[in-house]
Amino acid sequence: MEKLSFASDYMEGAHPALLQRLVETNMEKTPGYSADDYCESARQKIRAACQCPGAAVHYLAGGTLTNALMIGAILRSYQGVVAADTGHVSLHEAGAIEHSGHKVLTIPHENGKLTAAALRAYLETFWADGNRAQMVMPGMVYISQPTEYGTLYSLAELTALREICDKYKLPLYVDGARLAYALACGENEVTLPDLARLCDAFYIGGTKCGALLGEAVVMRDPALIPEFYTVMKQYGGLLAKGRLMGLQFDALFTDDLYLHIGKPAIAAADRMRAIFTAAGYPLAIASPTNQVFPVIPNGELERLAAVVDYSFWEKYDKEHTVLRFAASWATRSEDVERLAELLK
Amino acid sequence: MEKLSFASDYMEGAHPALLQRLVETNMEKTPGYSADDYCESARQKIRAACQCPGAAVHYLAGGTLTNALMIGAILRSYQGVVAADTGHVSLHEAGAIEHSGHKVLTIPHENGKLTAAALRAYLETFWADGNRAQMVMPGMVYISQPTEYGTLYSLAELTALREICDKYKLPLYVDGARLAYALACGENEVTLPDLARLCDAFYIGGTKCGALLGEAVVMRDPALIPEFYTVMKQYGGLLAKGRLMGLQFDALFTDDLYLHIGKPAIAAADRMRAIFTAAGYPLAIASPTNQVFPVIPNGELERLAAVVDYSFWEKYDKEHTVLRFAASWATRSEDVERLAELLK
Amino acid sequence: MEKLSFASDYMEGAHPALLQRLVETNMEKTPGYSADDYCESARQKIRAACQCPGAAVHYLAGGTLTNALMIGAILRSYQGVVAADTGHVSLHEAGAIEHSGHKVLTIPHENGKLTAAALRAYLETFWADGNRAQMVMPGMVYISQPTEYGTLYSLAELTALREICDKYKLPLYVDGARLAYALACGENEVTLPDLARLCDAFYIGGTKCGALLGEAVVMRDPALIPEFYTVMKQYGGLLAKGRLMGLQFDALFTDDLYLHIGKPAIAAADRMRAIFTAAGYPLAIASPTNQVFPVIPNGELERLAAVVDYSFWEKYDKEHTVLRFAASWATRSEDVERLAELLK
Amino acid sequence: MEKLSFASDYMEGAHPALLQRLVETNMEKTPGYSADDYCESARQKIRAACQCPGAAVHYLAGGTLTNALMIGAILRSYQGVVAADTGHVSLHEAGAIEHSGHKVLTIPHENGKLTAAALRAYLETFWADGNRAQMVMPGMVYISQPTEYGTLYSLAELTALREICDKYKLPLYVDGARLAYALACGENEVTLPDLARLCDAFYIGGTKCGALLGEAVVMRDPALIPEFYTVMKQYGGLLAKGRLMGLQFDALFTDDLYLHIGKPAIAAADRMRAIFTAAGYPLAIASPTNQVFPVIPNGELERLAAVVDYSFWEKYDKEHTVLRFAASWATRSEDVERLAELLK
Repeated sequence: MEKLSFASDYMEGAHPALLQRLVETNMEKTPGYSADDYCESARQKIRAACQCPGAAVHYLAGGTLTNALMIGAILRSYQGVVAADTGHVSLHEAGAIEHSGHKVLTIPHENGKLTAAALRAYLETFWADGNRAQMVMPGMVYISQPTEYGTLYSLAELTALREICDKYKLPLYVDGARLAYALACGENEVTLPDLARLCDAFYIGGTKCGALLGEAVVMRDPALIPEFYTVMKQYGGLLAKGRLMGLQFDALFTDDLYLHIGKPAIAAADRMRAIFTAAGYPLAIASPTNQVFPVIPNGELERLAAVVDYSFWEKYDKEHTVLRFAASWATRSEDVERLAELLK
Repeated sequence: MEKLSFASDYMEGAHPALLQRLVETNMEKTPGYSADDYCESARQKIRAACQCPGAAVHYLAGGTLTNALMIGAILRSYQGVVAADTGHVSLHEAGAIEHSGHKVLTIPHENGKLTAAALRAYLETFWADGNRAQMVMPGMVYISQPTEYGTLYSLAELTALREICDKYKLPLYVDGARLAYALACGENEVTLPDLARLCDAFYIGGTKCGALLGEAVVMRDPALIPEFYTVMKQYGGLLAKGRLMGLQFDALFTDDLYLHIGKPAIAAADRMRAIFTAAGYPLAIASPTNQVFPVIPNGELERLAAVVDYSFWEKYDKEHTVLRFAASWATRSEDVERLAELLK
Repeated sequence: MEKLSFASDYMEGAHPALLQRLVETNMEKTPGYSADDYCESARQKIRAACQCPGAAVHYLAGGTLTNALMIGAILRSYQGVVAADTGHVSLHEAGAIEHSGHKVLTIPHENGKLTAAALRAYLETFWADGNRAQMVMPGMVYISQPTEYGTLYSLAELTALREICDKYKLPLYVDGARLAYALACGENEVTLPDLARLCDAFYIGGTKCGALLGEAVVMRDPALIPEFYTVMKQYGGLLAKGRLMGLQFDALFTDDLYLHIGKPAIAAADRMRAIFTAAGYPLAIASPTNQVFPVIPNGELERLAAVVDYSFWEKYDKEHTVLRFAASWATRSEDVERLAELLK
Repeated sequence: MEKLSFASDYMEGAHPALLQRLVETNMEKTPGYSADDYCESARQKIRAACQCPGAAVHYLAGGTLTNALMIGAILRSYQGVVAADTGHVSLHEAGAIEHSGHKVLTIPHENGKLTAAALRAYLETFWADGNRAQMVMPGMVYISQPTEYGTLYSLAELTALREICDKYKLPLYVDGARLAYALACGENEVTLPDLARLCDAFYIGGTKCGALLGEAVVMRDPALIPEFYTVMKQYGGLLAKGRLMGLQFDALFTDDLYLHIGKPAIAAADRMRAIFTAAGYPLAIASPTNQVFPVIPNGELERLAAVVDYSFWEKYDKEHTVLRFAASWATRSEDVERLAELLK
């Protein structure tokens, strides 16, 4: 029997519905660089799903590239991006943001989230600082939904961030690498139209949500980033066969697939949370989405690793480690039950 | 009947053999970031095809990204890359090289090629210039095979460039976006082992040569770019589902497919060259590979555009325009014959 | 007797009037970062001399820094700066422009100048190019007065460039490293008010025109570059003791000193031009300002170097070399006459 | 009577001995770009003072420029610089480090210092992190002596940092913007030869220590940064009249002036510390050098500001503020006594 693996949510290929579209259109001839009809069809469906008919929609091949490009293109040279200290752009993008010349201005997180209170305090302190002209000016705000910790912003929390952004004239950008797992979660309050209404830009994650690759950037006001096509080229983000992404997003936004595709992952993660708790392993982070963070005694790590693939998350204390188990759209319930057996 | 199109060599999806691999492995679980067995298998096959067992092989999603990363990572901050003024990095990458801080030092081309004589003259002039310390130091050489004009470096030409690079201690890097069309061309003398032997780094183009996407960088000496994985992440070039590229390159390097995949394109392009010439349209560039550059009177452009998609190449003179007709691995001979009919 | 030297126009310290101001104010306490009264006084005098009361005036320590900052701050990330291929930013700033992420888009010069015709042709070609979205968009125009070749734009030429810039909405920026030598030249038609009226930004060179160091940027509309102070800090261009530059510009703009300080240099250069011509050495460039470019047979270079310091300019042909002899505000007529003796 | 001012240590011009050298050499002709004999003489004296005959010595115009250049030139593209979170590069350089593409990796300070324990813990954590390849690799260590808080590294502390740097092969770079105030301080243990021995590079601050402008970079091994001259040009840091800095450093290193020039500042700061303490104002930071950080009730700030210029440092708590009073080589003891009178 295959070894169990909950190492990540990008272990399989594409959702069958997406793959089928690639297969059945494979030999068609279309223009390059996302100028084809499939990309356009997906744009229309995404605009409809977001209730934002005037939005610009662009496809990029990965999350780090998308974040670097959006941040680099929105900011002026003297500005930085505000993010929680746990944000993906703060820690795990190998300096991609700095590579395009900008500082990540970090704020201590709360449960993986940037709180309105912390953001307000940061901005008030900055604008009251007599030396601020020698500091990096906050020029936009980055959050992710779900967060790096798998937690969710409530509608009230997102609205509160929006109000502060309005007050300080800061574009608000949301990294939605795992957005499908937010949308499929029972606790989630923030819909696609909410995101389109409350954020200046966000991206709908494809790579971790059923696609082979691809993220769809949505900008309420296309003027936020002029010459987007050229910017994509400059960042090395313009795929020749852009339809590869258009076709997949077209499938993801047919029959609301994107709203449902994460449901098996949430069910699997909920079950895993119950399994770990029942087996006496507390959860380090109260995450309601597709990632599970059990605290495991160090002495048991090796035994566990022999039977199931997981990810290291962080040290909990000298004797315990936080692991990450990820479920995805492709997780099979029988594998979750095998995990339950193993932990008994 | 479908309108004829020779607009580019990236209009279709993947070669069926590649698509099949994606389909049959779709639901397998593998580690991310090109750490999977398929990527490793393709690496071994590429090393074997290049007769270079110690080479590093990395997969990246597109040509511009690959060029920007390779040039940015090889050069020191005070160095620039030497290229023909027609080079892709000089003109058509929207400033991607400058975005990573480096100047493209252009030299007039000959038939799309950087000649050894021109390179030597440039380097001699630079090193003899008393003001050179206030100038950008040449730090590496960029060429492409085939060139932007579809022409080919002979083995003697490539060897001559190598000798100059050796003398000036300059890494030589080859952009192989359309490499399969060189390898399939009767006139070609430069093999994969030649490239691995004579260049410090080159990339084997996938996107334009049968893959959905993907370019495979080959570096004779892996130490040329330390921490390649981190550099890929920093440039936004690390795909989560890297196996997507590994599987396709594994198929491309099974049964020498990559050496043959371009043959239909060469046959089609040869036939198109004959067709245009016979129809009284001279060729602006003597290109032996998969691109054809007829000179068309401006008055006929509209009529032609109504029946066949092509690319604008450049103005020839006030009354004529150079067009580009591209063939690919997927070009059907019946379409070429339909073109012959149309031009009669 | 001291060896003759016409190696450059920055061999001496400061004009005595400037040095005196530094000496007499040396122990005064003033605020840092150009927030002092001397800097402000100089700003007012510069605005008056430019007949541009609303201009922003900022001080920077050197020409390359000024060019890199102005270009980097004016351009959007996807834009480049258009310049003559002989421009200082094109050739002799060691990649400072590319270091801030931008391409220099070069156009063949005419006598060191960017002509309106060449600029128009370049822009028309760019905007007509179907592939322009994959190219670097021209975002501003750089010229210098006098040019790198010591030549001058006439008022008509500058006006013609302005009209093209207006048509294409391109900021026009003038590098005035040697501006005093233009203003002191009999042939010159372009006044400081003309520059302020016809350019979006320009800098008044101090370093080569009588100051120890310092360039004064003038921007008709301060909104051209928001947060200029922070941008200066970010580029490492904010001097703690900014008054050092303010005091010197205050002296340079007292009693029209800046308009006259170059006159001895023009007289000396005119005399040198006559001397070389009379001695049978043709001039490679018809420059009316403070630099002289005689063509010298290679066989005489060594003998000449033994008695006078000069700069190498470029090869003329296999047997001749172009040298540069520079005069400055500090050049003594007796030294010029000694040169005449030596060449007899 | 002039209003008292302790706003900064860069309020006056140059120390008279330095100014005199500028005056007496003003009309001499010398080569540009620090290739003159005065710059060379100062280099020899600095090498001697550092007991490091093989060191490279370069002059740059300001601290931020020096830090940005040194960090940008030492690091590889995928590396960041480790610094205390209070470091000047972390907070008050407007993103100059990020502008050259690098992240500042901050570690919580202790009394303004980066401790060996904190550095070791950081590096151990980094190298133990399974995700480190997606993070910015620490590539060098930045500290300042004295620190941003005016505190001093002891010889043992500096040696301990060196040992960790050796273990992890990290260049250690010291920002000496106020180095003269360390060297003049009774508590100081770290000499110039110690710095040259224990650091890979450091700079000897001129601007805040008696010069009009100028910082002298000292690199034990010149190969640490190849093509330094070109790098200076690229960063806009190459002054045409480089002798301006050479002459001043030559004076600063004549008769050990640099070792003594800070003594009046230390005496004045010591007296101010006693004055504030005696007047009932505690000191927020135990700094032994030329900066004094009294805690002042908010209600008294306005009255105080009316009679003496100071700098805002930071909020202490809701009712108190930390101010900074800076002494310099030019501070007069009668001004300090006037302050004592005002605070009675």
